[in-house]
Amino acid sequence: MAEEEAAEKPTEAKEEVKRDENTVFVGKKGVMGYVLAVVTQFNNGAPSVLIKARGKLISRAVDVAEIVRNRFLPEIKVEDITIKTEELTSEDGSMSKVSAIEITLVK
Amino acid sequence: MAEEEAAEKPTEAKEEVKRDENTVFVGKKGVMGYVLAVVTQFNNGAPSVLIKARGKLISRAVDVAEIVRNRFLPEIKVEDITIKTEELTSEDGSMSKVSAIEITLVK
Repeated sequence: MAEEEAAEKPTEAKEEVKRDENTVFVGKKGVMGYVLAVVTQFNNGAPSVLIKARGKLISRAVDVAEIVRNRFLPEIKVEDITIKTEELTSEDGSMSKVSAIEITLVK
Repeated sequence: MAEEEAAEKPTEAKEEVKRDENTVFVGKKGVMGYVLAVVTQFNNGAPSVLIKARGKLISRAVDVAEIVRNRFLPEIKVEDITIKTEELTSEDGSMSKVSAIEITLVK
C-alpha cells in the first residue's frame, strides 16, 4: 500500500528578473530622478544596472553614473561602457543616425 | 579637497608626452573639425588617439568617435572609455563638478 504523490513543482515561485528591469533609460527629466532610479535598483538587490542614453542625453547619462558613484554608492563600479550608432526613422520616413551610450554599473 | 601632488611616476614619460600629442579635446566647434583632427592624427601615424570632453560636450565626443569609425576609418576600434568627475574653479573661487569622458581609439 504505497502512495506516491508527485513532487510540487518549484517553478511557480521562481523569481524572474528581467534584464530590462535593471535598465535605466536617461531622458529629458532632471538628473536626480535617474540617479534615484539607479540607486533604488541596487537597493532592491540588482547586481548590475545598465544606464542607456542617446544623442545629447549621453552627457546626462555620464552625470547619472558619476553622481551615483560619488555621492550615493561609493562601492559601485563602472564595469563597461560601450558606444554605438543607432538609426532612427522619423515620421516622414527619413532616416537619421544618432550616437548612443550604455554604461554598466556593478556592485 | 586635498590634492595629491606626490607620487609622480619614477619612469618619466616619453609616452605621456606622446599621448598628449595624440589627444583631441572636443569643444564647441562643429563635430567635423574634431573628426578631421582625429583622422589626421591616425593618417600621420599615430597608433592611438584619445578623445576628451567635459560636460555637455561629452555627447559630441561620442559623435566624433562614431563618425570616425563609421565613415572614415572602419578599421579603428574603441580600445577604452573612461568617465570621471573633474572639479573646476570658477573666477569667483567657487568650485563646481563636471563629468568628463575619455575615449581611446586604436588602429
